[in-house]
Amino acid sequence: MTETLNAAVIGAGYWGPNLARNFRSAGDWNLAAVCDLDRARAARVAESVGGAPVTTDVDEVLDDPLVDAVAIATPTRTHHDLVCRALDAGKHVLVEKPLADARAAGTAMVAKARERGLVLMTDHTFCYTPVVQRIRELVADGTLGDLLYVDSARINLGLVQPDVDVFWDLAPHDLSILDYILPGGLEVATVAAHGADPLGTGKACIGYMSLPLAGGAIAHVQVNWLSPTKVRRMVIGGTHSTLVWDDLNPQQRLSVYDRGVELGREPGSHADARAAQVSYRLGDTWSPALPETEALAGVVTELAAAIREDRAPRTDGTAGLRVLAVLEATSRSLADNGTPAPLTTAVTAPSTAVAAAATVGA
Amino acid sequence: MTETLNAAVIGAGYWGPNLARNFRSAGDWNLAAVCDLDRARAARVAESVGGAPVTTDVDEVLDDPLVDAVAIATPTRTHHDLVCRALDAGKHVLVEKPLADARAAGTAMVAKARERGLVLMTDHTFCYTPVVQRIRELVADGTLGDLLYVDSARINLGLVQPDVDVFWDLAPHDLSILDYILPGGLEVATVAAHGADPLGTGKACIGYMSLPLAGGAIAHVQVNWLSPTKVRRMVIGGTHSTLVWDDLNPQQRLSVYDRGVELGREPGSHADARAAQVSYRLGDTWSPALPETEALAGVVTELAAAIREDRAPRTDGTAGLRVLAVLEATSRSLADNGTPAPLTTAVTAPSTAVAAAATVGA
Amino acid sequence: MTETLNAAVIGAGYWGPNLARNFRSAGDWNLAAVCDLDRARAARVAESVGGAPVTTDVDEVLDDPLVDAVAIATPTRTHHDLVCRALDAGKHVLVEKPLADARAAGTAMVAKARERGLVLMTDHTFCYTPVVQRIRELVADGTLGDLLYVDSARINLGLVQPDVDVFWDLAPHDLSILDYILPGGLEVATVAAHGADPLGTGKACIGYMSLPLAGGAIAHVQVNWLSPTKVRRMVIGGTHSTLVWDDLNPQQRLSVYDRGVELGREPGSHADARAAQVSYRLGDTWSPALPETEALAGVVTELAAAIREDRAPRTDGTAGLRVLAVLEATSRSLADNGTPAPLTTAVTAPSTAVAAAATVGA
Amino acid sequence: MTETLNAAVIGAGYWGPNLARNFRSAGDWNLAAVCDLDRARAARVAESVGGAPVTTDVDEVLDDPLVDAVAIATPTRTHHDLVCRALDAGKHVLVEKPLADARAAGTAMVAKARERGLVLMTDHTFCYTPVVQRIRELVADGTLGDLLYVDSARINLGLVQPDVDVFWDLAPHDLSILDYILPGGLEVATVAAHGADPLGTGKACIGYMSLPLAGGAIAHVQVNWLSPTKVRRMVIGGTHSTLVWDDLNPQQRLSVYDRGVELGREPGSHADARAAQVSYRLGDTWSPALPETEALAGVVTELAAAIREDRAPRTDGTAGLRVLAVLEATSRSLADNGTPAPLTTAVTAPSTAVAAAATVGA
Repeated sequence: MTETLNAAVIGAGYWGPNLARNFRSAGDWNLAAVCDLDRARAARVAESVGGAPVTTDVDEVLDDPLVDAVAIATPTRTHHDLVCRALDAGKHVLVEKPLADARAAGTAMVAKARERGLVLMTDHTFCYTPVVQRIRELVADGTLGDLLYVDSARINLGLVQPDVDVFWDLAPHDLSILDYILPGGLEVATVAAHGADPLGTGKACIGYMSLPLAGGAIAHVQVNWLSPTKVRRMVIGGTHSTLVWDDLNPQQRLSVYDRGVELGREPGSHADARAAQVSYRLGDTWSPALPETEALAGVVTELAAAIREDRAPRTDGTAGLRVLAVLEATSRSLADNGTPAPLTTAVTAPSTAVAAAATVGA
Repeated sequence: MTETLNAAVIGAGYWGPNLARNFRSAGDWNLAAVCDLDRARAARVAESVGGAPVTTDVDEVLDDPLVDAVAIATPTRTHHDLVCRALDAGKHVLVEKPLADARAAGTAMVAKARERGLVLMTDHTFCYTPVVQRIRELVADGTLGDLLYVDSARINLGLVQPDVDVFWDLAPHDLSILDYILPGGLEVATVAAHGADPLGTGKACIGYMSLPLAGGAIAHVQVNWLSPTKVRRMVIGGTHSTLVWDDLNPQQRLSVYDRGVELGREPGSHADARAAQVSYRLGDTWSPALPETEALAGVVTELAAAIREDRAPRTDGTAGLRVLAVLEATSRSLADNGTPAPLTTAVTAPSTAVAAAATVGA
Repeated sequence: MTETLNAAVIGAGYWGPNLARNFRSAGDWNLAAVCDLDRARAARVAESVGGAPVTTDVDEVLDDPLVDAVAIATPTRTHHDLVCRALDAGKHVLVEKPLADARAAGTAMVAKARERGLVLMTDHTFCYTPVVQRIRELVADGTLGDLLYVDSARINLGLVQPDVDVFWDLAPHDLSILDYILPGGLEVATVAAHGADPLGTGKACIGYMSLPLAGGAIAHVQVNWLSPTKVRRMVIGGTHSTLVWDDLNPQQRLSVYDRGVELGREPGSHADARAAQVSYRLGDTWSPALPETEALAGVVTELAAAIREDRAPRTDGTAGLRVLAVLEATSRSLADNGTPAPLTTAVTAPSTAVAAAATVGA
Repeated sequence: MTETLNAAVIGAGYWGPNLARNFRSAGDWNLAAVCDLDRARAARVAESVGGAPVTTDVDEVLDDPLVDAVAIATPTRTHHDLVCRALDAGKHVLVEKPLADARAAGTAMVAKARERGLVLMTDHTFCYTPVVQRIRELVADGTLGDLLYVDSARINLGLVQPDVDVFWDLAPHDLSILDYILPGGLEVATVAAHGADPLGTGKACIGYMSLPLAGGAIAHVQVNWLSPTKVRRMVIGGTHSTLVWDDLNPQQRLSVYDRGVELGREPGSHADARAAQVSYRLGDTWSPALPETEALAGVVTELAAAIREDRAPRTDGTAGLRVLAVLEATSRSLADNGTPAPLTTAVTAPSTAVAAAATVGA
């Protein structure tokens, strides 16, 4: 018989209530505590999900031998300290994205989790939506063919954040999705970032990122805090078909265009000859039916499964680290007026992540 | 009484028939000749518009004292030679975009037209559509407020061209429109371009351009030959309102969102304080009714007016030159892996263009 | 100082929780009780809104002198009995639509409320949405000009209801909105209804209603339980402009087309001459910004105001009665294969409703 | 070897030029003449298609032994006389819709064609569009399952016609399509029509038609001259899937929703039991790729094929007659305030049409 696991939520701000609600309603989990420096805020969250123990003391949570895992939904700059303390206390950890505010910190967190044989999962929530699950399948099963480009746009009037620019605020969504759906994960060598701050807020409010992918393909991410028209759209072009995800169109969220462009690849022929062999194909369009399930329910289920099966979760710490590496390079490119910035140190690839997973619980 | 002007069309390929038809039907013009190396092709064009003299000899056209203007719709690499010969023969010239295949050539053409006191007009057709005319007004009359960003996307399955990449093929449209609607014309200091050639055709088939604008704003252009979903959309964000032009939605081609984002600009306050003063405003949306007129009819009318009034046409040679300068810098940035490329030599600004215009016919 | 009013919710099924939540969160109201024959169901509703007294005994509620008003959300066939008992107990009443299952019953309820000087309000929730409020204003202030037609469609896969057909299930929404926005309320002389039951369920699952309006205009309502594509759209055409309400497009829920058709009305001219004078006008389109407020909050606020000001609420009992009269005639037309059915007995008009209101609390 | 057929176009108004152009460019046909009472008008049409003999004398056309077929595009009230004269002269006939202005006239025309063994084809152009061809296939091959309903809307600002109401002007399109795609053709027993004339033009400018179909299904047609928003949409609901044709969305003209509603049909169970067995199914949506071909090219090709193969064309005279019968009943229902009107005399069914075809050329 499977025993119920105990989870504590640390941080009762914007995202904490959603975590608490999903731990409360999941069959795998018992909500053991809600922890926040502001007791009233913690209490409101606990009450809103039907009641749970409340504390303002993180150590009380970490010292509790019954707590199996903690979910950390505090400001990014506090992640490194809290995650390391939790791992040192022997707890599995689910942490909000981005994993940390610096790559070195993230690397240390991943290393510590590996040493301790504990699960470190990044809450890349979007990866657990039915639409992203389906996109991953369509890429993996060859429906799209070879990837040509990925265009992602995340645009709308958003608050100018006090501590981060628009890249660090919005692009983690796009990057975590790319990491999840690209066959080899988010493995890029360089990033070029262009930003604009036309209102003089002291940080980029509009941003564009270009990420050359393997095989000559390219990923492009567009983020914008200053637009009154909301856009959440990703287009993935492949040689066999092209996929359009329009998250604001619930009636037809995902469309697959069975149209493509192919190139005869005769051995030895040079580029001009190949250009002449480009052919276009127009086929049907279809929109798969998608279930209506909450992504965060999938997150807590995956966390439980990873713990029980002694394996790395999908969207583990190294996934968070890959996103972080791109964000850091983005900031460097931005500081260098858009000159492409290399991701100097190699980031642990997904395959290594699986190897790391093998040590979990060993 | 106004005398009818005589125009000859040189080049009877893709665009020539449209030019011939519009000269034929315009009150200002008489279609004096259609010229093409392929006599049968020239004859077909002449017949399709109801008849006109046909020739395979450019000199015959240029030597004809009755011909006031020639419209040149031949491959880009031939523009410089043909335009210069036409100007030397004392003809006013309308030339297809891009103006030339190199900036130096374009500069020489503009200089020669100025010396000769003749009109040199670039056929930036899109600028004469009712929607672009209206956008120019909305920018100029302050409806949008200060510009924050311009996002332009021109995407669909297009033929891989034998001699140019996707930037030179498609971006002239976007750049000529930007030149027409931006208050100061297309005055940019640098361009960063990122391209991809995932099919190995030997040239970029997917491209992104970032152009920092005055006042911290940014323009971004996205062009793509490999997408089965057609997109022709431009978004212009301003402090007062935002404009969306969706050229594929004839029922609502242009939308103006009376929503914006503003920043208190207290003197002496630093950026963080200003960020805290950002305010959002949500108002109505409206779509102006637009007349259904053919853009090319406006082109030939403007050409006639410029000739008669001894003035520079809107979209004169210097407009073509500004577009050309950006395209050249784009190619340099592309060759340098996306490092922003400066537009080293200053390009004649619109104000200078007006000055040049003053000399026309002098 | 305004005293808080006490409300009890009777019926804890589909709609009861929403009523309970809104009474709970409204400043005007205290939620005094949740009553349902199924105690567990009542308890769940009470708990979900943060706690409230629970009972299975309606008399307990009606005998409680502290209760000012009851909201009745039970099956339609029970409305007459429960509303009458509540009115006899001196309670103001908010009742779900339709008002009753027969017009005679509804008439008796309205009469009893008038006699007792109590508020009887029909919960025509849609009338309290920001979009319908705005439509009412646009009709009333002459923006649309003279009404020409109203087309309403309410279509999607819905459960085949055990006790009512698609007209009684869905059309009350459309009819209550029409009653609210038409200048004279839903005053129609005849209804023609056409239904279809292609699955042999024993009742109409697809329905069309035609309602001739004053001045030669027409209203048409289309309801359908069997369509996989959801439609909730109302088009109102007027001589000055036309309005489209697409409730499934949150980005542009309401559009006003400043286009119209007008007819010269020269005195004495006959129809043919007038036809020749028809003129079309094409102007801008605009979409008003609408606040995001919950309609039911407006319902309970209006109920409190009507009680305190001794007046009829908007959407009072007579509004419910006008809807009921159309539904009854619809059933008669349906039974007569679509032959238009007269609304034989005159229904109390809105003006009379106001008169009735004057007696409230007298 | 197949001999080219000779066609003459009679009537050079709105539709004549399209007929002339398609006869001119079809491999099957030679354009033998353009005939119009207004010689200049006929000449303009002939010139616009590259030249053809012109005449003002119908007899000249009918007496010409080389002319195989005539296409009649004159006002509806002249169809009967011209078609009968052409048939008497031994010509095959293509006639614009509606077939005639009265059913008796149409019946006589069909009878005469049968007697003479000549092809009489109604120009139901829409039936030859790729989208309608595909819809017919999807109905016929069972993709939709049993039909539940057809909803057709044809709405936009249109001229108030001098001689016909909105039903006779616009509904022939919808009715001819229904006749083409419904398995048994447009076989209806009654029609109920509701119209409105809010501008006092003396004829219906807004109209709704309900047509009960076999098996409990229903067709509904909505036509409107007074709306500024253009709509051309047909929805066909079936037990297996539902089809939406939005003719104004060229990017996704036809969508098939693989969703449906089914009812267990246990023998002996009464309606209530069956209602409880209704089940819903949500599947993918798809949009077939459609070729871009001109419908009228298909019309003239089918005319040639019917003549050569001695068979009835698709959309033969009896198809026109079925449409006419519905229009006549529509006018009767309208005159009777919307009371459903029977199509008293049986109209020749498609099967009979085939029988009739067998006599062609005999």
